[in-house]
Amino acid sequence: MSALSLRAVAIDTYHENVAYLHRDCPLYRSEGFQALSKVEIHQAEDGRPVIAVLNVVDDPALCAPGELGLSEQAFSQLALPAGTQVRVRHAQPPASLHGVHRKIAGERLEAADYLAIVRDLVDNRYSKIEMAAFLVACAETGMEREEVLALTRAMVETGERLDWGEPLVADKHCIGGIPGNRTTPLVTAMVAAHGMLMPKTSSRAITSPAGTADTMEVFTRVDLPPERLRRIVQAQRACLAWGGTARLAPADDILIAVERPLSLDSPGQMTASILSKKLAAGSTHLLIDIPVGPTAKVRTQAEALRLRKLFEYVGEHSGLHLEAVLSDGRQPIGRGIGPVLEARDLMQVLENDPRAPLDLREKSLHLAGRIIEFDPDVRGGHGYRLARDILDSGRALARFQAICEAQGRNPHPPAPGHLVEAVPSAVDGRVTAIDNLRIARIARLAGAPMDKGAGIDLLRKLGDSVRAGEPLYRIHAEFPADFGFAREAAVRDSGYRIE
Amino acid sequence: MSALSLRAVAIDTYHENVAYLHRDCPLYRSEGFQALSKVEIHQAEDGRPVIAVLNVVDDPALCAPGELGLSEQAFSQLALPAGTQVRVRHAQPPASLHGVHRKIAGERLEAADYLAIVRDLVDNRYSKIEMAAFLVACAETGMEREEVLALTRAMVETGERLDWGEPLVADKHCIGGIPGNRTTPLVTAMVAAHGMLMPKTSSRAITSPAGTADTMEVFTRVDLPPERLRRIVQAQRACLAWGGTARLAPADDILIAVERPLSLDSPGQMTASILSKKLAAGSTHLLIDIPVGPTAKVRTQAEALRLRKLFEYVGEHSGLHLEAVLSDGRQPIGRGIGPVLEARDLMQVLENDPRAPLDLREKSLHLAGRIIEFDPDVRGGHGYRLARDILDSGRALARFQAICEAQGRNPHPPAPGHLVEAVPSAVDGRVTAIDNLRIARIARLAGAPMDKGAGIDLLRKLGDSVRAGEPLYRIHAEFPADFGFAREAAVRDSGYRIE
Repeated sequence: MSALSLRAVAIDTYHENVAYLHRDCPLYRSEGFQALSKVEIHQAEDGRPVIAVLNVVDDPALCAPGELGLSEQAFSQLALPAGTQVRVRHAQPPASLHGVHRKIAGERLEAADYLAIVRDLVDNRYSKIEMAAFLVACAETGMEREEVLALTRAMVETGERLDWGEPLVADKHCIGGIPGNRTTPLVTAMVAAHGMLMPKTSSRAITSPAGTADTMEVFTRVDLPPERLRRIVQAQRACLAWGGTARLAPADDILIAVERPLSLDSPGQMTASILSKKLAAGSTHLLIDIPVGPTAKVRTQAEALRLRKLFEYVGEHSGLHLEAVLSDGRQPIGRGIGPVLEARDLMQVLENDPRAPLDLREKSLHLAGRIIEFDPDVRGGHGYRLARDILDSGRALARFQAICEAQGRNPHPPAPGHLVEAVPSAVDGRVTAIDNLRIARIARLAGAPMDKGAGIDLLRKLGDSVRAGEPLYRIHAEFPADFGFAREAAVRDSGYRIE
Repeated sequence: MSALSLRAVAIDTYHENVAYLHRDCPLYRSEGFQALSKVEIHQAEDGRPVIAVLNVVDDPALCAPGELGLSEQAFSQLALPAGTQVRVRHAQPPASLHGVHRKIAGERLEAADYLAIVRDLVDNRYSKIEMAAFLVACAETGMEREEVLALTRAMVETGERLDWGEPLVADKHCIGGIPGNRTTPLVTAMVAAHGMLMPKTSSRAITSPAGTADTMEVFTRVDLPPERLRRIVQAQRACLAWGGTARLAPADDILIAVERPLSLDSPGQMTASILSKKLAAGSTHLLIDIPVGPTAKVRTQAEALRLRKLFEYVGEHSGLHLEAVLSDGRQPIGRGIGPVLEARDLMQVLENDPRAPLDLREKSLHLAGRIIEFDPDVRGGHGYRLARDILDSGRALARFQAICEAQGRNPHPPAPGHLVEAVPSAVDGRVTAIDNLRIARIARLAGAPMDKGAGIDLLRKLGDSVRAGEPLYRIHAEFPADFGFAREAAVRDSGYRIE
């Protein structure tokens, strides 16, 4: 194991470390490395090695014999200057992979197994295929609820944890899958206006046309340093920021790089992922929204009840006051789908505009009411009315504006995409089904969430009548190519059933 | 979707295509690509796209904005000159991944599902994590035997298939896991000397200290063009070559890139992998060797019988005359482990040298006898005696030498590694267990199979007496670093139990 000269290779390989060795490197030849084998990189006698997958280079300009190249993340993880002499050897699979094999063999794993797996994940000791093996192994025969609890705890323990110094820190989370379902800013504004603490951080869209962070960015800055966020929360009792920079439950961010392309979303992983983030963020009271519908993530009432019980079990044993509500997931919520169009819906609700989508208003009031009832001073059943008073009186709007000001208002709020086309009904009839997945797909093809103004504006919802030629929805886009893709997709299948 | 200029990036990413886009590439920004998303690369209106995983580049010397870089295999798969204008877009997951999700959900897949999956695999439409998902999904709840048959057929259909134009084409295969178990060259020489056709191609070691191809390379060239191989087989009735260059059951070679690092070896995948290769190679009669022992791949008699029945079922329904024998897998076979040391054992058996390891001789005679009984003119129970006559008379040696001559004798046969250390017993006693996995690991650490002379030479086998300080085996190595690793590993755990 002789030394190589360290070199940064300006390639972003995301959450997988890659090491580059020249094919003629004497080390490569003598050690019998093969492409895609895993290697450990050490400095002479120092600390923990960095683990990377090996790629073989045939161009000395990229990485010469005698050099070891590292992809950007791996280089920064090793944290040594270029030119440092480092040592490379075959990496053993992470010890915790034994647990993954036992899971594949159908065994139930113990808390210590999950902790070992999550530690190795956070240390970047797992390759992508090892992560995939873990996720599929857990998805296939499923996880017992004790296993989900163990995984949740392990994910919390291996990251940082916030403490807000208050006995009641409220949070809400929707398991996702329903386009336009942008209740979070409304609920947060109402709950904060009631005086409860709700330091809300949200994600950007991964597979959907918009996440709350994407939509909030239409109004305000969402990427804020932790200290500034803390001051905003102290002053406003809430924030509406992006949660991506914190090192909260980092294993979750690592696994998502594999869950997403595999479209894996098993109940156990979903529960551990959501609850570990909330626990790490210091939440004490959490409301979970589980939409149910034929094209929602959860398709049947029975499935939804099982999932709710799993959330409740893990919440209870993690010291989290958790309630899960089942909601109507048969169609998108509101009219707009995509950041700008959803932002417009939000403002209409906050401003008590008569055009405001009623379903978005009602759902937000309902959720806010449930969270307000977490307040020990609020009588059971009074939350909804309190929320409605807050909204109708304009106090929710005022609080929302104050939060946006504090975070830093967007000086150039984007407009809806200027390329617009209405998608008409082919027949006379009544809308009997709207496919959430199809609508989301068309909105993404149109450019959402990257192009803020892109998306879909729904003109008909379930039960509405429509005549042949009348529009079902409008597609908005900013770029002609995306516009074309979205229109073609809508022609192939509009996502609406008219009967 | 605007055009980019194609560029080869001299990085070998093995069986995973990688595409490189500069972070400032306008396309990257407008399409919302993220690192590790999959893209399709097309030439304007042409044929099938190449699918690749995306890496993001921050160095324009590697890949400039406006360029699309492709890793070596991806570039050659696209088969267009550098500078060609190509188009890139988000790749949809392969349609067959739906079947993988159904398998994860516990469903049984149909023949059409397996064919679709294998077609997409062969077209390089699966990323590594998708392959891992498929393999784990099949390993976890297992495959019904009809599913294994369907997978086997799909793997044969999606590659080339040899036809030897004879009614009886004999083959043998060992499922592996036993160091030193180099019966194939002996069996092949005996069977060919009997006059039967046995065009034997073998693999190189993947996780073991030597494969038959590695050991044969000590004697002769093994990497031969198909036409030359065919002439050798016509003349000698056999060959002993490397099978790696043929496009036989190519899906198997693709999956192995993920099976190996995951150490996945489920009965279903193993059966499909072995039988698809044999069917594609044109074999009609196959003998399978299943060693059973506490540190073998198959640990119990019950497990071995299940595997044998699976082989028999798939063989019978694929038109393959198949017999599977259970053999003693409690310890390594022969004395030498590693290419040169195994080659020495082989020659001792062929030359009827009194030092020849008896277990290697007996096992080879037994297997050769079973294959010779595939000959309709040989009476049941007469095979062993015929094999012994062939070996004792020197006809096996003569045939082996003729095959080596025809393939092209190695002008510089390597010698055992010159760095040698004996590993002593710590106590007086009798050898009660030898750990195949540990012995294989130490032999690999010593440098086998890359360093032909490296490996282990066993001096004691099960049941032998030994006194404290007397050697159990010798480690051979060619390089000091490997020598050190192997010796350290042997000190930590020699792999022997002495009682």
